[in-house]
Parts: sequence; structure tokens; C-alpha cells
Amino acid sequence: MLQSNERFRITYRLTCDADEDPYAKARDLALEQTVELPAEVLPPHIADLVVGRVEAVDPVGDPPGDAGVSAWRVVLSYEAEVTVGDDVTQFVNLLFGNASLKSGVLVEDADVPATLLMRCGGPRFGVPGVRAACGAEDERPLLCAAAKPLGLSPAELAAVCYAFAAGGVDVVKDDHGLADQAPAPFAERVPRCQEAVERANADTGGRTLYFPHVSAGADLAAQLEVVRAAGCRGIVVSPLLIGWETTRRLAADSGLVLFAHPTLAGAFFHPTHGIRPDVLLGRLFRTVGCDGVIYPNVGGRFSFTLQECEAINRRLREPFAVHRPSFPVPAGGIAAERVPEWLDRYGPDTVFLLGSSLYRQKDLRAAAARLVEAVRRRAAVGG
Amino acid sequence: MLQSNERFRITYRLTCDADEDPYAKARDLALEQTVELPAEVLPPHIADLVVGRVEAVDPVGDPPGDAGVSAWRVVLSYEAEVTVGDDVTQFVNLLFGNASLKSGVLVEDADVPATLLMRCGGPRFGVPGVRAACGAEDERPLLCAAAKPLGLSPAELAAVCYAFAAGGVDVVKDDHGLADQAPAPFAERVPRCQEAVERANADTGGRTLYFPHVSAGADLAAQLEVVRAAGCRGIVVSPLLIGWETTRRLAADSGLVLFAHPTLAGAFFHPTHGIRPDVLLGRLFRTVGCDGVIYPNVGGRFSFTLQECEAINRRLREPFAVHRPSFPVPAGGIAAERVPEWLDRYGPDTVFLLGSSLYRQKDLRAAAARLVEAVRRRAAVGG
Repeated sequence: MLQSNERFRITYRLTCDADEDPYAKARDLALEQTVELPAEVLPPHIADLVVGRVEAVDPVGDPPGDAGVSAWRVVLSYEAEVTVGDDVTQFVNLLFGNASLKSGVLVEDADVPATLLMRCGGPRFGVPGVRAACGAEDERPLLCAAAKPLGLSPAELAAVCYAFAAGGVDVVKDDHGLADQAPAPFAERVPRCQEAVERANADTGGRTLYFPHVSAGADLAAQLEVVRAAGCRGIVVSPLLIGWETTRRLAADSGLVLFAHPTLAGAFFHPTHGIRPDVLLGRLFRTVGCDGVIYPNVGGRFSFTLQECEAINRRLREPFAVHRPSFPVPAGGIAAERVPEWLDRYGPDTVFLLGSSLYRQKDLRAAAARLVEAVRRRAAVGG
Repeated sequence: MLQSNERFRITYRLTCDADEDPYAKARDLALEQTVELPAEVLPPHIADLVVGRVEAVDPVGDPPGDAGVSAWRVVLSYEAEVTVGDDVTQFVNLLFGNASLKSGVLVEDADVPATLLMRCGGPRFGVPGVRAACGAEDERPLLCAAAKPLGLSPAELAAVCYAFAAGGVDVVKDDHGLADQAPAPFAERVPRCQEAVERANADTGGRTLYFPHVSAGADLAAQLEVVRAAGCRGIVVSPLLIGWETTRRLAADSGLVLFAHPTLAGAFFHPTHGIRPDVLLGRLFRTVGCDGVIYPNVGGRFSFTLQECEAINRRLREPFAVHRPSFPVPAGGIAAERVPEWLDRYGPDTVFLLGSSLYRQKDLRAAAARLVEAVRRRAAVGG
């Protein structure tokens, strides 16, 4: 007989049309995400233990207006071992898999079952490990610059990397559009860029790291071999493209720092249907082991609000299981001159990722050096 | 110097607010999906060859109403080797990666570059191969039943599989929520279910296949080993959970028929932002090699229109490169008694996947047999 050991809770915000009953919609979701059968054909022990349990249905916000649309906060609980076990893929499936094909279902919060937390283990480096790798163990924010654009040769990309490293940023990362294209094949550009960063470090006494983007689109093992042989300490990955388990495995087994890129994530951010940004990029990316999570900062080229950005920061840093905190990496059009201001707002456990605003200054080394200096001054004042 | 060999086209529908210029939005997209830099900082050869080229911007539908919202069909072209190469992950990234984080961007159509088509190879079995594996080489639709629910023991799931196979369906597939949970660990349930289906075949002279769900959430190689040792001919996978390259690799190397589940796909189906269902589930799932593509049929528990379903069917079957056609697998609440009617509409190169409506009939074997008989009668009339 099935026994219940641990239940975990998922909080949804359900948006109901005038003809939808929120209680019925909640029960439907509890069936859809587990047994995919109507309640009346289930054996009693399955109905009791396997189907999600509706723990709460509470109205949210204004009462329905003329259109009759209403919003409800719904908490479902699930039995952990029976529905998920230690399978991160199945966890995301249960969270929003078939629910994605319905409408008006927004994941607002999600516990992670204990067994899954143990298997995932969270960030292997996290804030302290990344600080140690960069030699930035003091209370200061880290600075990251993006090597780009797609289309440059390995030598040209290496020159960009040299300039940023010589300017003193902590991390130079590949643009996430750099894969294994003809202008700069992966196996050529990664050693060239790493060598350039090491040369800059030797020239300046710096400790800049270079994180190539591993698209995992070709032979992943071969790409990791190139990364390790070159001596890189970390990589950039795109969890929503390469899959949850591949990301988890890279965090657990590669020995490399993982910075996660949010590509494709916007598909989930419709205001009434999807997964809230702090749950997807904060809770879930951290759970599978991302040491840093890149997200589009408010006021840049994308559409997050300040509140959403701060919620992501909080999820990445808050005490959570025994997992290390991850670095928030705001990006997506941060102006270099505003970094000190963002530092005041987001605090020192932040990696600021810059691209365009450095490239606009033409002399990349000087641009990076100015940024480093401005942040150092502000951090000193703040401390 | 970079040279252009092949350009491929992506068609977007851009929705513009009153203050957005569609031409500027198109140019912004062409930069965002490639170089992630403003045009003015790019070297001329990068601007020429790497940045997407705006080929067309045409108004769609009604002129802007009071709110000033307008829709535009925008065609961008990209140089294939420079931007994508043979990397399917990067292809999806270019299609909608950062664009997902903007608003009002809908992918309506997508060419696939020739190099990528060669690497992907499309379905290894496709319609003819799946027909051959089932012994259904005559012009008739295939029937598939879902083994469920989550929470049953391996013996109970095996009994379900036996009943459906003895009833004469062509394929019994696992529910996609079956992973490696405590009630029915993967390594136990897969051999039990396969054995049950083989026993049914021996008892009835049938040729039913059993496709377990491989979540790829644990050790993928170990799960494939179990599948092969049991003698299964195919599997169910969830491409949006396990990743594009993992799916491609399974199609290319596993020797197994791949049925794809659309879990999470609904995140992409917002009417003005995302990827159109026929592009995502039709064009892309087929390109990476799925032999059958499950989708939620109109009129069931989910929200597709008939037009969307027919567009998916068309994409899966239309001549495309040298790729084999894939089977559309409409599902998600198809009533058994309406299958003959759907057969008339969708044609014989369809796999009808049933779950709830068989389970409601209690005697699963008799329910399956009635369905098989009804479809056989209708197919005979149609032929």
C-alpha cells in the first residue's frame, strides 16, 4: 500500500472567466498534473494519495468586474515520493507541464521536495565559491563583461576578452549566441579566449575568469573537454534549451562554475499564465545548481519590473535547504554609469553584467577600467 | 572574410503598441537575435552578414483601433553558417531565445538551414516506419492508449497494458507523468509492461507495441538500457523538458521510435507572443526527429482550435527536406465514440491517442476492442 512521507506545496494564481468555478478549476489542475484521469474512474487509494490535494482557494485582488474575470490564490499539495521522487524533469512537469496547455494558470511559489533537493544539491560554488575563484572574498559586487558579437574570429574575440580582463572585470563571459559557428568554431575560440584572459592577468596581476558558452548543441562531452583542457573555471549554459537534467548534471559533475542564461524564459512570463520570474529563474535555476543567474534588469532592453528583479535576487540569496546562495546577474542593457546606483539598491552579492554600454565606449579596456574604478569607489563608501 | 552561403527566413508577427514603430521593432529583433549590440558599434562586415536582414514588414489585419495597437508580418533572414551552423540548440535560441523576453513577438514560420536539416535527419521511422513496426502498412489510422494512472504498481500498470493490447490498439504508451517514482520504479515497470504486451500479442495474434516514457531525469543511458533489454521498440519523450539536442540525439542514435509529448509547450502559445503551435510541435519537433507528435485535440481538455490542429497535421506530413513525415497524435480528451468522425477529418495517417474515455468504460479490453472495431469499419467504408 502507498504511504505518505512528505507533501510539498505549489501555489498557483488561477484566473477564472465568468463561467469558471475556481474550486472546480483547482480540482481539475490537481488531477491534470498527476493522474490525467477524471476523479470518478480512480481507485480510492490513488485518489487519496496521488492526486494533488486542494489546500486553499482564496480570492485575490478586486472582485470580478463587468467581464466577470476573477483571480484566486490556490495552494495544491502533492505527495513527494509518489509524484516526483528525485527526478527534476518530472518536478517541472508536475509544476506546469500539462497546465501550460490550459489558460489562466500562473505558478507563484513552489516548494521543492526533500529528496529532489538532496539529488540536486544546489550551486556547487554559489556566492562564496565564485568569490573565492575570482579572489573577491571581500564584500564587493562582481563585474562581468560579455564577449561579442557573433561573427568575430577567435583572434578578434580573444582581443575583446583581453581588453575586458586587462580592464579588471571579474568575469568575461561569452554571448549566449556563440555556439560552434563557422566564424569562430568552439574548439578554436575557447582556448584563444582563455589564453587571452590569462595573459591579461599576467600583465596586470588580475584574477579575471573566462566563462565560455556551452550550447550543448553538439557533443557536450567533447565541448567540456575543450573547456577543461583550456583551463576555464566556469561556463555559461541555457537551462531552458539544454534541459533541466543536463543542467543539474553539469552543476553536479563538471566541477565548473555555472552561469545560467534566461533565453526562452520569457515564454513563461505572461502575467496570468506561466511561472513567475522569481520561481523560474530564482528557485528552480538555483535548485538545479546554477551559481549565477543572468536576468534582464529593469530599465534595459527587456520588460521586468523592479519588483520582479528584487524578487529574483531574494530567491537566489535566501536561506533555502542547505543550498548555497547564487549570484543574481542583472544584465540586458545596464548602463555602466548607473552601476554604482544599482549596487546601492541590489547590494554587494550581485554580479553586474555589461555589454552594449561598454562597447559604445570603443576602448574596451578603458571602459572596463572606468567601471571597475567607479564600483570600487562606491563599494568603499558603502562599506 | 566571412562569406554568405545560405540564408534562411523566419516569419514573425509583431504586435506594436501605439508608440512602437514596426520597422524599428523589426530591426531591433534582427540585432537582438544575433549580435546583441546596437548597430552603431558593429564593424561593417558584422552588420552586413551576421545581423538578421529585414526582408519584409507588412501590416496584418485591421488598422489600429483606438488603443493604437497594430500587427505586422515581418520576415527576417539570417546567414545560416554564421548564425547557426548545425546546432539545433542555437537554432531555437535564434528563433525565439532573447525575443521571448520582449513582448508582442510571435514566430509564425521558420525555415530550417540545410546544414541543420542534414544533422537532424528528421524522423528515423516516421509514418512508414511506425506503420511497419505495428504491422499496419495498409491505409488505416493507428490507435494508441495511455497506460495510467501514476500511483499504480508495476503489476497494475502491466495489467492495464495487457488489456489495451489484447483489445487490439496499435500502441500502448506510458502517461508522461510516469517517471521513476516509488510506486513503480522505471526498471521494474518497463519490463513488466513490455512483457504484458508481448503476452497479449501471443494470446491474440496482435502486434501491439509498448512505448515507455523516458523522462531522462535520471541516468538516461541506464534507462535506455532497460528499454532495450525489455525489447521495447519506442519511447515517449518530452522535448521541452529534456532539451532539443537530447531529443535529436535520441532520434538519431537510439534506434527507437520517438513519440513526443507537448508538456510545457503551452507556455509558447500566447496569441501575440510565442511560437505558433504548428511551428513548435510540427516543424521543430519533426526536424529533431520525433516520429509521432502528441498534441491536445480541439474539443478536449485543452485549448487548441481546429485550425491549429489541422496546421500541426499539415506540418508533420508535408514534404519537407528529405525528412520522413511524422504521425500527428491528437489526444487530450478524445471521446472514443467520436474517433471515426475525427478519422474522416484528419485522414488515415493519424494516431488517435485515448485515455479517459477508455477508462470510463471500466472493462479496458472491451473498450479498446470496441474502438478498434469502430475504426476498422469506418476505415473500410472510407477506403
